[in-house]
Amino acid sequence: MRKIGVKEIEDIALGAALLGAGGGGDPYIGKLVALGAVKECGEVTLLSPDEVPNDELVIPIAMMGAPTVLAEKGIGGKEYQTLFEMVSRFFGKKIYAFMPIEAGGVNSMLPIAACARLGLPMVDADGMGRAFPELQMVTFTIGGMSASPMALTDEKGNSVIFETVTNHWTEELARAVTMSCGGAVSVSLYPMTGAQMKQYAVRDIVTRSQRLGEAIRLVRNSSEKSPEAHFLELAEGYKLFKGKIADVLRETRGGFNFGRVVLSGIGECKGKSASIEFQNENLTAAVEGEIVATTPDLICLVDTETFVPVTTDALKYGKRVLVVGLKCFELWRSQEGLALVGPRYFGCDTDYIPLEKRCKGGLAHV
Amino acid sequence: MRKIGVKEIEDIALGAALLGAGGGGDPYIGKLVALGAVKECGEVTLLSPDEVPNDELVIPIAMMGAPTVLAEKGIGGKEYQTLFEMVSRFFGKKIYAFMPIEAGGVNSMLPIAACARLGLPMVDADGMGRAFPELQMVTFTIGGMSASPMALTDEKGNSVIFETVTNHWTEELARAVTMSCGGAVSVSLYPMTGAQMKQYAVRDIVTRSQRLGEAIRLVRNSSEKSPEAHFLELAEGYKLFKGKIADVLRETRGGFNFGRVVLSGIGECKGKSASIEFQNENLTAAVEGEIVATTPDLICLVDTETFVPVTTDALKYGKRVLVVGLKCFELWRSQEGLALVGPRYFGCDTDYIPLEKRCKGGLAHV
Repeated sequence: MRKIGVKEIEDIALGAALLGAGGGGDPYIGKLVALGAVKECGEVTLLSPDEVPNDELVIPIAMMGAPTVLAEKGIGGKEYQTLFEMVSRFFGKKIYAFMPIEAGGVNSMLPIAACARLGLPMVDADGMGRAFPELQMVTFTIGGMSASPMALTDEKGNSVIFETVTNHWTEELARAVTMSCGGAVSVSLYPMTGAQMKQYAVRDIVTRSQRLGEAIRLVRNSSEKSPEAHFLELAEGYKLFKGKIADVLRETRGGFNFGRVVLSGIGECKGKSASIEFQNENLTAAVEGEIVATTPDLICLVDTETFVPVTTDALKYGKRVLVVGLKCFELWRSQEGLALVGPRYFGCDTDYIPLEKRCKGGLAHV
Repeated sequence: MRKIGVKEIEDIALGAALLGAGGGGDPYIGKLVALGAVKECGEVTLLSPDEVPNDELVIPIAMMGAPTVLAEKGIGGKEYQTLFEMVSRFFGKKIYAFMPIEAGGVNSMLPIAACARLGLPMVDADGMGRAFPELQMVTFTIGGMSASPMALTDEKGNSVIFETVTNHWTEELARAVTMSCGGAVSVSLYPMTGAQMKQYAVRDIVTRSQRLGEAIRLVRNSSEKSPEAHFLELAEGYKLFKGKIADVLRETRGGFNFGRVVLSGIGECKGKSASIEFQNENLTAAVEGEIVATTPDLICLVDTETFVPVTTDALKYGKRVLVVGLKCFELWRSQEGLALVGPRYFGCDTDYIPLEKRCKGGLAHV
């Protein structure tokens, strides 16, 4: 058990944006929401998974929708209270703690804001260990858990509870309502007991985000000869490419941000080109037409000087970025995991090969 | 209080299809569902509105979606039980009675089936006195009542509860889910007390449907000289046109059946042509380009020989039909009523003029 305040939020936001793998929303927006709540209502208690009683109700909460829409539409103030009341009424039992569903600039922050405002503790765990675009893409699905009853509410005050026969149906129906509500809403899903959370959640992900954020901050301010090598070492990252953004194609469709970014090499990558496909999150990275990393491993773009993560909605022509690969949570590499979030699910016609094999043992690919 | 059995269902289905004004679904499908339930589970008790205690919970139930889809997809068996449980759990109180939301071939029949299967009484009242395509188009909206909490379930077992800030939002969100569920679902909406029902519902509509059905049956089997005049007299209908269907344009879009039917005159209408626009229900009728009736008055097509109502999904080239106008429920002619269901709401650029004024006092327009 420890407290999360202003300083922790700064680091968690930065690190979570890296784990967002291009998605998870604008970390600046997320950070403002969390900071505002903590400054107004006080620090949040972060519980280790094992500190949650087995029979208590734990609820992941998140924003659902296209991150670009979220940045424009903003987040109201009453959504968390509404979700709390809807779910508590449904179960006839009060929620014990909230937790994040994924790591990302926005979705790592909203549970902090919600916990601060409602005076609830937050659990140091999530369901992805990164960000993914669809709601069935969580370790809880592998554990056979149901996304429903799922609660959804928008900033206008509309609220919906879904009970569905499969998690794909939850995604389908909730996505339709999200679109009708303007493309971004607040949700709670995968309600679970403390016991279930301990068995399937990605543990200590808030703490990992915070460490990554600290690393970015430290490296940026250090006077080391090669901050890049230092950053890769602290993040346990594989350097996939370094380049200048030469082209960005985007499309907001069905509540997702789809697109492709093309990089022309700089530094040791000069003369080469790379491309990254994304659906909210980065899905595949290819250098000179050869795939060097795929989902579910994390493909992260960071600024070459500051190492600040660049989300897919912040891609801009001319920006210089380092493309970094991070190993995904082990469970995603299982057969069930790859069926949910492997490259073929996203329509990429390639087998999954673990990042470290593609990169042949060396930290640097190029 | 009286019983509804096989004989009553036959007449109610026929009369309700007429009141469906072209919409409300295929009366054959609706009838089969109601007959099946009554034969298996016994007759249904029909209560007059005044027989319902003021503080009991009354729930309109219906199918939502495109009637053409409904005819193909069919109706499962567990939807009524699911709706009953969802709503009773939501209110922490058992539902006292179901009622129809609209008059129509399917939606007048489903509450009968539901009441038979669950052993509940049905109230002799609905919220339209005809059929309309969107769910906020009920007298309850004029009474300031909320469509939500609205419960929705499909034949696969997915279920959703909506609580929305306006009835237009209920329509918007429920329509999106209906589309995702394949275009036709079972719903309960406008939950109300017995007192509210008595104040705003269209009373005795089941009985009126039954009387109209009896009239069609009697006229068809009588040996009168002019069964048409007899039918118009019994139905209190205005004869708007008589013709052969020369063209039908249809489009299923956004969960609705849109279209237009063109008639070329027969009998005393020979040489003239008429056209009728519809969105599930018939919206406007024009003869020689001049509008002769508009929503919210009922524009009904019936077979020229049998007087069996022809719904918009049963329109076929060559069929001979009589176009009949019926006066709508008085409340629809108020300013609030016309804002909800008048011609301009449906994008028809014409003022509402009551049917009897357009027809200048005479029963026959042509």
